[in-house]
Amino acid sequence: MLLEAIYHQPKSQYAYAYDEETLHIRVRTKRNDMDRVSVVWGDKYDFVPDKITTTEMEVFAKDSLFDYYQVAIKPPFRRFAYAFKFEKGDRTVFWNEVGFTEDSLSSSGVGMLWSPSGMFEFPFLNAVDVHTPPEWVKNAVFYQIFPERFANGDPSLNPENTQAWTHESVPTRDNFFGGDLQGVIDNLDYLQELGITCIYFTPFFEAFSNHKYDTIDYLKVDPQFGDNKTAKKLVDEAHKKGIRVMLDAVFNHSGYYFPPFQDVLINGEKSRFKDWFHIKEFPVSTDPLNYDTFGFVPEMPKLNTENREVRAYLLKVARYWVEEIGVDGWRLDVANEVDHRFWRDFRDTVKAANPDAYILGEIWHNSMAWLQGDQFDAVMNYPVTNSILDFFVKDEIDAESFMGRLDAMQIAYPKQANEVAFNLLDSHDTPRLLHIAEGNKDRMKLAALFQLTYMGAPCIYYGDEIGMTGGGDPGCRKPMIWEEEYQDRQLFEFYKNIIQLRKDHPALKDGTFKFLSAEKDNKYIAFERTDENDRFIIVMNSGDTKQKVEINDMEPGKFRNLYGTG
Amino acid sequence: MLLEAIYHQPKSQYAYAYDEETLHIRVRTKRNDMDRVSVVWGDKYDFVPDKITTTEMEVFAKDSLFDYYQVAIKPPFRRFAYAFKFEKGDRTVFWNEVGFTEDSLSSSGVGMLWSPSGMFEFPFLNAVDVHTPPEWVKNAVFYQIFPERFANGDPSLNPENTQAWTHESVPTRDNFFGGDLQGVIDNLDYLQELGITCIYFTPFFEAFSNHKYDTIDYLKVDPQFGDNKTAKKLVDEAHKKGIRVMLDAVFNHSGYYFPPFQDVLINGEKSRFKDWFHIKEFPVSTDPLNYDTFGFVPEMPKLNTENREVRAYLLKVARYWVEEIGVDGWRLDVANEVDHRFWRDFRDTVKAANPDAYILGEIWHNSMAWLQGDQFDAVMNYPVTNSILDFFVKDEIDAESFMGRLDAMQIAYPKQANEVAFNLLDSHDTPRLLHIAEGNKDRMKLAALFQLTYMGAPCIYYGDEIGMTGGGDPGCRKPMIWEEEYQDRQLFEFYKNIIQLRKDHPALKDGTFKFLSAEKDNKYIAFERTDENDRFIIVMNSGDTKQKVEINDMEPGKFRNLYGTG
Repeated sequence: MLLEAIYHQPKSQYAYAYDEETLHIRVRTKRNDMDRVSVVWGDKYDFVPDKITTTEMEVFAKDSLFDYYQVAIKPPFRRFAYAFKFEKGDRTVFWNEVGFTEDSLSSSGVGMLWSPSGMFEFPFLNAVDVHTPPEWVKNAVFYQIFPERFANGDPSLNPENTQAWTHESVPTRDNFFGGDLQGVIDNLDYLQELGITCIYFTPFFEAFSNHKYDTIDYLKVDPQFGDNKTAKKLVDEAHKKGIRVMLDAVFNHSGYYFPPFQDVLINGEKSRFKDWFHIKEFPVSTDPLNYDTFGFVPEMPKLNTENREVRAYLLKVARYWVEEIGVDGWRLDVANEVDHRFWRDFRDTVKAANPDAYILGEIWHNSMAWLQGDQFDAVMNYPVTNSILDFFVKDEIDAESFMGRLDAMQIAYPKQANEVAFNLLDSHDTPRLLHIAEGNKDRMKLAALFQLTYMGAPCIYYGDEIGMTGGGDPGCRKPMIWEEEYQDRQLFEFYKNIIQLRKDHPALKDGTFKFLSAEKDNKYIAFERTDENDRFIIVMNSGDTKQKVEINDMEPGKFRNLYGTG
Repeated sequence: MLLEAIYHQPKSQYAYAYDEETLHIRVRTKRNDMDRVSVVWGDKYDFVPDKITTTEMEVFAKDSLFDYYQVAIKPPFRRFAYAFKFEKGDRTVFWNEVGFTEDSLSSSGVGMLWSPSGMFEFPFLNAVDVHTPPEWVKNAVFYQIFPERFANGDPSLNPENTQAWTHESVPTRDNFFGGDLQGVIDNLDYLQELGITCIYFTPFFEAFSNHKYDTIDYLKVDPQFGDNKTAKKLVDEAHKKGIRVMLDAVFNHSGYYFPPFQDVLINGEKSRFKDWFHIKEFPVSTDPLNYDTFGFVPEMPKLNTENREVRAYLLKVARYWVEEIGVDGWRLDVANEVDHRFWRDFRDTVKAANPDAYILGEIWHNSMAWLQGDQFDAVMNYPVTNSILDFFVKDEIDAESFMGRLDAMQIAYPKQANEVAFNLLDSHDTPRLLHIAEGNKDRMKLAALFQLTYMGAPCIYYGDEIGMTGGGDPGCRKPMIWEEEYQDRQLFEFYKNIIQLRKDHPALKDGTFKFLSAEKDNKYIAFERTDENDRFIIVMNSGDTKQKVEINDMEPGKFRNLYGTG
């Protein structure tokens, strides 16, 4: 037994409330080290031998070094004192907050109140603290639209020098094609046919650039795209078709032409907006840069979200689009550079306007600090993105490593955050999936199939479903191809089918997930998704040669060859 | 190198902002495993080879299984991308968010925004999120007063059947001795002579019992103790003598005679207070209990702090005593059973009334979930209490185990929380220190000396300093002995001296702490406390035999035999 490998932290992703009556308790051990792991638990105010329960835990995730055990328990009085019991051969070790002991559980205490018995504790399950993302996200299939490039529905709004929109159009960093909100309204039937249930829009507020991440007015649709009435109409029409709408909140920084920043540039220390940013000294200088920015980009001054006026302004924005326009969620740009306190207020504001709104952080790294129930519902799941690409598309890692990297995310967050994680494979910031796959549509389909059968909410980048190509920005931002002869309609049918498969079977959305096969040096995997109705066993081969995979414990059932030749 | 032993979690007690410009980065390894551990870091938007820095880390805590390394770094742009480098013999291993690699740092990324290099991240140091406890607590010496038992200054307030106050008085669970707030005012000189700088009062609000934890009116001093004017006078007089005042907030539950609960008992489902508690069904029944309580005590109904009216009422209480009466802090009873959301609002309310107020949670277990800067400044440090008692007083553990248990607390929380942790050795809930020491004043003094030279704010339970005895409640709640002939004046002088020693030397308050000797099976320890002015090396022998202790690296200095015979 390797005691050094064992890890647990009370009140964390290792011990959290899954719902108002259920706790999830997890513990880490060295891979394949234990015969049996159990949690030994009772009420903290009645922790006496005949009222202590021992419940066996199950391995729910693995990587090359560790096994991760989990168990769900409903403590009758919502209070929970616990320890762990590890068994291997003849040896039994107990572990509580005081430390490890052999053979029997030790307690340390002097009196009722004196740490009843040195146990770990989940002191009380208060409903208000439970992390509860909106239920609809589990069932959602997202579709990302870059508004300037999806469809031109109102040519009267075209900016000067709008380029022709054809299947051969070449995007540059600063050209325009005339995409707008009416274009999206006009094509809702297309989205409905594909089967998607929520549009994620990159910003459409007034801004200077074609990507609109350099906001000028957060309360106004960019005139190139329409006006706030068009936005309202879009949301209403989408809702009628069962399609929700999520917007992009760029609250970390404003654009250069944001009037308060312009005021600071002009009036310097005398500007009434001087505290809206992080200016280190006056006069403001872009070279050398003497104010905080996104990255080192002078055109994107970081907003001072600690300032009362800035907070009030941004919270007004957050409320306006949800309350007045009816949008269903916010995706938060560069979310991890804005203060936690702001995001807590943001959550309160948005959920007061619509308790069912989805709050999604753009974070590329471990995000546990934002997923404790007080800030975000979920984050953009880049580690899963990279793992899927590395295994299915780039062929860079083996099955064990793929499992390890995915399962690391399972232990990294509470289950409810993973159930609504935003699983994308590409975006306006990356090369397109088909580009990364070097045109290999088989690999692209494997990746998409995994995405659509894995935990979390999948998101398809506009045009991927019809075979659009393109490298990193600006290549990935081509205008949507609407001429059917240049669309890959077979690919479209494939996407439509796997979306429908997911929608038809709750087990593929919030069933349990478990790898059945993911071995070192192998290129194939098998995994299972199970709920009370269905048990899916999905086998996928990312290698170039045929594989024979043996799955034990199979009952006779329906088999469908979703994709492939074998 | 044992990779399984290595642990780090971004944005946690392993990676946090210590102040507005400094990050503390920590990592765990197997004990004595590494030759060198370093953090490899740079700006997340400029993570290129010639701008990456490697900074060696130092072991700052140890236990029987692990070494804990730490380093303090000031990232120039407040953004921080990092990895770890482990060296042992010829082997070098790097570790970042993607995993372990031999010899060189691996990165995984496709483009600027695509997780620059798979590093761990502290994305941005926002000042408003920094955990900043009040500075004065580092310099404080607390003194706990149980108001019914400290001094009777106004006999006109005595309840019926008040017992005689002598050195032989015997407390029971429900008798009264007439202690009151005027009695404390009358004895402020005594406290000033002893040297204490903050009084911690167990509750003095109107209640039924002698301990007053069963609140009837949170906004009113119990008539047995005086009135709110007496409280104001007490606070003002104490402040004049440089003594602060901390009160006890019992917000988890009310008393049985709290009018809203009485209303629910009488009016049942029709009571306008029915949602102030967690009533499972009506009519309310105490046997079988059908509402949530503290423990299983029907007389202490749990308050529903998720209810808007309850929150407003309790926050009004929190504000009133700070704003109107001028108290300097709140100790929060059963703090971990109240919801996190309430405590966030509580912090905002209290700090708005007095940014320097101290917020102290009563938590007997791991408290990291409350010490992230948004809830408590610190917690009552029971694990340290138990460790000091087990080593110095009960002689139950060896020096290595003592070090391990104390150092486990160093890694459990950010440094700033440990600097203001509330270190008590006994209280109204436990046997008195001298009782636990079975009358052995040598052991008692060793424990107190360690308490006064360790990190965190020490608290002395009233009367310990003059040798009062008594077992668990009610024995530990005897009336204070004021007859000098029954006081141990030598012990008083000892306490006075060690308090003065601490006050004279900042190194003993917020200097670094490090064990120099704490070996398996040994009964003696040596540790050092250092700041820019002083370097204290303190050697303490808890064994019964004389020990020769060799300390290397000593410069000539002043030596003082603080206590003992050698």
